[in-house]
Amino acid sequence: MSAPRWETLYSQLALNIKPSAIRALSKYFQKPGVISFANGNPDPVVFPVAEFAQVAEILTTDAAVVLQYGGTEGYLPLKERTAEWMSDLMGRVTKPQEMLITTGSQQGLDLFASVMTDPGDAVLVEETSYPGALHILRNHAVSFVPLPCDTSGIRVDEVPAIIEKARKEGKKVKFLYTIVNFQNPSGATLPLERRKALLEVAQKYDIVLFEDDPYGRIRFEGADVPSIFSLDTSGRVVYAGSYSKVLVPGCRVGWLVGAPGVIEKMMLVKQGTDLCTSTVTQAMVAEYCKRGHMQAHLPKIVRLYREKRDAMGAALQKYLPADAEYATPAGGFFYWVRVPGIDTSALLPKAVEQDVVFVTGESFSPDGTSGRDRMRLSFSFPKIDQIEEGAKRLAKAIATLK
Amino acid sequence: MSAPRWETLYSQLALNIKPSAIRALSKYFQKPGVISFANGNPDPVVFPVAEFAQVAEILTTDAAVVLQYGGTEGYLPLKERTAEWMSDLMGRVTKPQEMLITTGSQQGLDLFASVMTDPGDAVLVEETSYPGALHILRNHAVSFVPLPCDTSGIRVDEVPAIIEKARKEGKKVKFLYTIVNFQNPSGATLPLERRKALLEVAQKYDIVLFEDDPYGRIRFEGADVPSIFSLDTSGRVVYAGSYSKVLVPGCRVGWLVGAPGVIEKMMLVKQGTDLCTSTVTQAMVAEYCKRGHMQAHLPKIVRLYREKRDAMGAALQKYLPADAEYATPAGGFFYWVRVPGIDTSALLPKAVEQDVVFVTGESFSPDGTSGRDRMRLSFSFPKIDQIEEGAKRLAKAIATLK
Repeated sequence: MSAPRWETLYSQLALNIKPSAIRALSKYFQKPGVISFANGNPDPVVFPVAEFAQVAEILTTDAAVVLQYGGTEGYLPLKERTAEWMSDLMGRVTKPQEMLITTGSQQGLDLFASVMTDPGDAVLVEETSYPGALHILRNHAVSFVPLPCDTSGIRVDEVPAIIEKARKEGKKVKFLYTIVNFQNPSGATLPLERRKALLEVAQKYDIVLFEDDPYGRIRFEGADVPSIFSLDTSGRVVYAGSYSKVLVPGCRVGWLVGAPGVIEKMMLVKQGTDLCTSTVTQAMVAEYCKRGHMQAHLPKIVRLYREKRDAMGAALQKYLPADAEYATPAGGFFYWVRVPGIDTSALLPKAVEQDVVFVTGESFSPDGTSGRDRMRLSFSFPKIDQIEEGAKRLAKAIATLK
Repeated sequence: MSAPRWETLYSQLALNIKPSAIRALSKYFQKPGVISFANGNPDPVVFPVAEFAQVAEILTTDAAVVLQYGGTEGYLPLKERTAEWMSDLMGRVTKPQEMLITTGSQQGLDLFASVMTDPGDAVLVEETSYPGALHILRNHAVSFVPLPCDTSGIRVDEVPAIIEKARKEGKKVKFLYTIVNFQNPSGATLPLERRKALLEVAQKYDIVLFEDDPYGRIRFEGADVPSIFSLDTSGRVVYAGSYSKVLVPGCRVGWLVGAPGVIEKMMLVKQGTDLCTSTVTQAMVAEYCKRGHMQAHLPKIVRLYREKRDAMGAALQKYLPADAEYATPAGGFFYWVRVPGIDTSALLPKAVEQDVVFVTGESFSPDGTSGRDRMRLSFSFPKIDQIEEGAKRLAKAIATLK
């Protein structure tokens, strides 16, 4: 028997799909002795292991529900706890029909892209953005319209002209994807005035905003900025949250909130993808919240990541060339470092030789052009002493190209 | 602020999507006193609750791995345990690169459809098939080519002419979706000779087979029939399995095995959907298998479902009109009952009046035409005394239409 002629059978998606940036790097993560500033994994040191073992009791006490199929829309107690816990950032206690539980917030954007875009439709994105989101959007064969950003995020005043130009070129601009707090990779947080302005732009040009907020709770200093979702009264914003960064990623539990109509559409699509998010992990997260652990846990992780942020700041200051540029992030997991005159795609193999890895600027670029002299350095996963040593190695790698 | 004009923003998928058949029925499931022959949920009576509580220990003993993000390809110990446990049905111990862990086998078909089909491509399906699979395939905007079946499943000798006709009509026939064991809804099991013949047809017409096997382990009598995957030496078959029916659905853990190339493509697509299946639930299932619980558990559930199958057989014999037709399923969860002259879509409201529900034949029809005088009666979830009472009520409902 002969193998199928796959090249004539595969879909366009399968023919074009490429590994994401992080995936391509993953072979280095396992190499002994390598310090990784690449992956944005949480530090397992702050996983609430003992509490998690306790909340697993619900697998026994409510087994008939928790081990069974659940409704596609999500486990009601988790929706209620999430709505309550997030009512400050989301602006109010959302109703169950405004929320869809997702298998991580990654799935949230995938479902949203499914209900909003046909191949060729255009999506507005920050000029450098989360590679996982770009991977999802590429899977949906959309075209990107990158938006210029400064240290405060999207330069909203330029957006109207960009939308008008794109529409003149025949592009069907459907929505804007943005990470508003401690953006991945830039670390920028969009100020209140720009959030309001962005909402007005969305209103004027009849587009929808997808507000991705995995890091909003990991704030080291300053006051929370109201979410765009909380400023909106028109149902024009879908907000995505996740328990991956603040609790544990292994549960794969995230959520979307938005107008009931679009939530219902996404629920129907989700039914054809995984039927429902694991009821086992939904129930464990709900029980964790119910027992009040989150309140005690959050300050603990904020303290740890603040220390690591500070350690990386000090190390970069100490070792990087004087012309290196970066802002100090007020939250989240990342430094976004510019080394003038250095293409970080050329730097990466030199860094690998020094046993340190990062994510190249190119990986965050929707069209491969922006951010080439930048790199994302994640401080969430490495130990504090590794941060110092990693920065030293990185400086050595840079020196070989200077 | 005014609401978005969703009708101009939604994708074609969102504009066309409808709730699946089971979803549309779900409002009845909650009605007190209703007996449901509709949903194919496992009976929670046989959930291995105590063992599951014990295997949750792995969340403590291996927390740094199990609570973290996992690789998109799946948790290696689960792949190894699954390959070992399934080596009889899958024909050999498959290698890790031949397997992708999925968030339930529902996701398996979704990923496969993503890498195999563009909108408009054609998929061969049994003339009546699992509504969840039809829902997935509709989400991918494929066209259906239904295949005639008898009590032994697909009439394979007719398939070549059907493929040739479809291709003459300009249809791009990519793959065949089949549930080979205890088919949903018909209960039919494809005999060995037909499996071999189907593989030859696939070879001749260069199509791929998706062999969905959620019920293969739930066999009440007779010997296992080798899977098509095990008969194939060309990499032309993707086999999908699931822990939902044999263990617990709440974990959302299933798997695909196939040629490493197509497995890799599906892994890349999965990365853009949910990053990875919950490592928490993958590890719990792996640990459950590792401790040898599955061997003791399977005979227990087979015994329970056999009793229920027999109870439903006796009740149907006792209460249904003499002209009702059905085969006794040798495994799985369903009776597929024909009541000559009765459109079961008209029967359903009468049944609801009698406080019993089932899934109408129409729901299983790719094009809404086949199986209209049939209904699927599931015996997996109701208690034994409910089965008798439900059949009695169903007979009353039928009587109102006779």
